[in-house]
Amino acid sequence: MSKILEKMRRYLKDQFYKKRIIVSYSGGIDSLLISILLSEVAEVLCIFIKTPYISNWALKNAVKNANQFNLKLKIINVDEIVENTENRCYYCKKMFYSILSNEKDVGEYDLIVDGTNYDDLFENRPGLKAKNEFKVRSPLAELKIRKKEIFEIANELNIPIPPKETCLLTRFEEGRKISINDLKKIEELEEFLRNYVKGAIRVRDHKNLVVIEIEDDLNDIINKKEEIIKKFKSYGFKKVCINLEGYKTY
Amino acid sequence: MSKILEKMRRYLKDQFYKKRIIVSYSGGIDSLLISILLSEVAEVLCIFIKTPYISNWALKNAVKNANQFNLKLKIINVDEIVENTENRCYYCKKMFYSILSNEKDVGEYDLIVDGTNYDDLFENRPGLKAKNEFKVRSPLAELKIRKKEIFEIANELNIPIPPKETCLLTRFEEGRKISINDLKKIEELEEFLRNYVKGAIRVRDHKNLVVIEIEDDLNDIINKKEEIIKKFKSYGFKKVCINLEGYKTY
Repeated sequence: MSKILEKMRRYLKDQFYKKRIIVSYSGGIDSLLISILLSEVAEVLCIFIKTPYISNWALKNAVKNANQFNLKLKIINVDEIVENTENRCYYCKKMFYSILSNEKDVGEYDLIVDGTNYDDLFENRPGLKAKNEFKVRSPLAELKIRKKEIFEIANELNIPIPPKETCLLTRFEEGRKISINDLKKIEELEEFLRNYVKGAIRVRDHKNLVVIEIEDDLNDIINKKEEIIKKFKSYGFKKVCINLEGYKTY
Repeated sequence: MSKILEKMRRYLKDQFYKKRIIVSYSGGIDSLLISILLSEVAEVLCIFIKTPYISNWALKNAVKNANQFNLKLKIINVDEIVENTENRCYYCKKMFYSILSNEKDVGEYDLIVDGTNYDDLFENRPGLKAKNEFKVRSPLAELKIRKKEIFEIANELNIPIPPKETCLLTRFEEGRKISINDLKKIEELEEFLRNYVKGAIRVRDHKNLVVIEIEDDLNDIINKKEEIIKKFKSYGFKKVCINLEGYKTY
């Protein structure tokens, strides 16, 4: 066992032994890893909040991972779309944590934990403010564990690393009013592209113009461009582009 | 000699024999062809109007073609940028034709001719209205000669067909106010891409996002993407994309 994993297990046992914990669970590698390790020493309920701007693909992936690692999972559906402003992550997380707080009170849990890691603390993440307001604990960040180390530990524990998924609102320009149909369109097109591409996929909607971003080889798209153009045009886009740099967060 | 070329020559001789004619000349295949054929029977002065939204590449190409076919060429510089509205072609052409009208009067020419062909009449071309207001004649359209036939005649006469060039304002979204610097940026980037691509090139400026459109194989871009991304980012663009369909007018 690597030193870092040993240190983590010691810390989690020390801090959370036999506690009843709700994990804010997205199915991504961070919350998946912390759920697995916490389950070794505590009673864990993973809660996945499904909004219209979280893809069904992300939900399916979250369920699959929870099953594979015997995690107890509760899914809560929310119909609302948070306003697409600069501060949307703050308002969304606030809504998430108030739901989790309620679950905690009703189910008599001891605390809420999430998968925030040390690197996250240095990024512009308006959601962190909401987390602090709700006293959510983040053992990965507390232990100063970085993304790179999370990948190493996941590897050591044979946890498969799911492609990075983000909120579907990131596919639209800030300030634009987003409807359920806008979200469905993007979700269906990303699902369609999974026929051709394995890694992360982002379909970014600039109204008439759409930009495809992929983590893998651009030739996966170029070689199938006729089918892809046809499909995207049937969704009303006029220009179908790919980002030369592949998948990019900005 | 093909029948259609024979018919053209007969018509031009019949209509324009020994006339003194100003051709509204862009260096594109249409105005080049009509200039060459008219020169066989009439006295022709080609006039190229250089605005900030006509590329230097187009000017160079126009000069080269005029020299190759012994056409008399006059270049007139205009500093103004027409307002980038839906009707910009109308206002631009109106300005063009009033300059040519003045040249006609001062130089005592008989008429103004342009390269409008029969297909052009069926497109949405606000510039045609200006043409009619100034009584400019269009022998190619009068003879119902289509673009396809123009290529055939050019071929028969060994006239090389220059890549299709359009006004640089087509690189920007309608309604956006365009500065000389905006135009220079696009022009320099298209010039840069000519290192890698032979056919038509369009660099479309969507503020933070830029879309490259090329007529030739997309791999000409993909294979050099590192250099291209670096260059475009140095011009302030954040996302550098290519249109999967290649070069597209819409």
